[in-house]
Amino acid sequence: MRQPLGRPRDGRVDGAIAAAARELLAEQGYAQLTVDAVASRAGVGKAAIYRRHATKQAMIFAAVMHDLELETPPDAGSLAADLAAVTRVIATTLTAPPPGVVPGMLADVHADEGMAAAFAETFVKAERDCVTEVLDRAVGRGELAHRPDPARVHAMLLGPIFAWLFLLLEERARLPRLAEALAADVAHSLTTGPGRARDA
Amino acid sequence: MRQPLGRPRDGRVDGAIAAAARELLAEQGYAQLTVDAVASRAGVGKAAIYRRHATKQAMIFAAVMHDLELETPPDAGSLAADLAAVTRVIATTLTAPPPGVVPGMLADVHADEGMAAAFAETFVKAERDCVTEVLDRAVGRGELAHRPDPARVHAMLLGPIFAWLFLLLEERARLPRLAEALAADVAHSLTTGPGRARDA
Repeated sequence: MRQPLGRPRDGRVDGAIAAAARELLAEQGYAQLTVDAVASRAGVGKAAIYRRHATKQAMIFAAVMHDLELETPPDAGSLAADLAAVTRVIATTLTAPPPGVVPGMLADVHADEGMAAAFAETFVKAERDCVTEVLDRAVGRGELAHRPDPARVHAMLLGPIFAWLFLLLEERARLPRLAEALAADVAHSLTTGPGRARDA
Repeated sequence: MRQPLGRPRDGRVDGAIAAAARELLAEQGYAQLTVDAVASRAGVGKAAIYRRHATKQAMIFAAVMHDLELETPPDAGSLAADLAAVTRVIATTLTAPPPGVVPGMLADVHADEGMAAAFAETFVKAERDCVTEVLDRAVGRGELAHRPDPARVHAMLLGPIFAWLFLLLEERARLPRLAEALAADVAHSLTTGPGRARDA
């Protein structure tokens, strides 16, 4: 198919919009971002953006999720080591976007059912699959007698990291140590704690 | 001092603004709320609102915090029971506001340094005092050899509850059981876990 001269092909337009949105989020912050500014920076018309994304919020969501790689870490040999790797993945995901972007996106997710569905099907599902796989490995190794509820374990891993960064506004520099301690605590709790037969 | 006829006294104006904001948040949602609508519902002028609150966001924050009572639960006799009470306080605080209000306020907190300071000095401080008091009681009882870092324990308690409600979008009906299990896990981890000497 012929491409209009001087205009990037479609896949490149997607990438240009995502890159422009990410740059502007970093430069101006979440609340200040406009579709006009993204269109101008990406060198595309506003119509090109609205053909791809119903709203400004959906455009930002796609831009932030565009490069998100949430792969399950390779088997590290034990539940504790696997959970430590999962907490590092979660911490990286939450600290990668520019300041204000995660809380801003979360507010949008709660203001729009379509955004909530997209959030559940992408970010939440990818992390959940990762948690589930790590728990299954522990069952396979005999470290756990059965698989605990992945939703509960997910909340125990994601929650404190999110809280540290976005609710308690604590120092980012202390996050790696917190995440490591958290993984050790959750592994201990799953293998020896009062809840180890809870989800049986 | 004489009051203008037909206008409530000042303390009542504060209360009327807060009540109107809370009603409209419940009826219309966070993103739709306007200062005009709050002024109209409260029967005051916009100027009366802006004399009290610099921005719409600050008005909402004050309204939501207005009736927030975050008292440390009475001594329940053990760390596990005290932590269970703390998780109930946290769950109540996070589920009380109308849908969308907590994520909306959090985005505003991250968009404005003044809001961040107010958030840290009210909500975070009240919860932190509560966690710290409960940990000190456990040290007093001999359940803990020393007090762990209250910020870390705070993140372990608040984080999973917040994640369950606002990140993982899980069922609210399951929250009480999750909070109870969480308290038991954190008590177990603090008394027997790999981190029990971590913050010494």
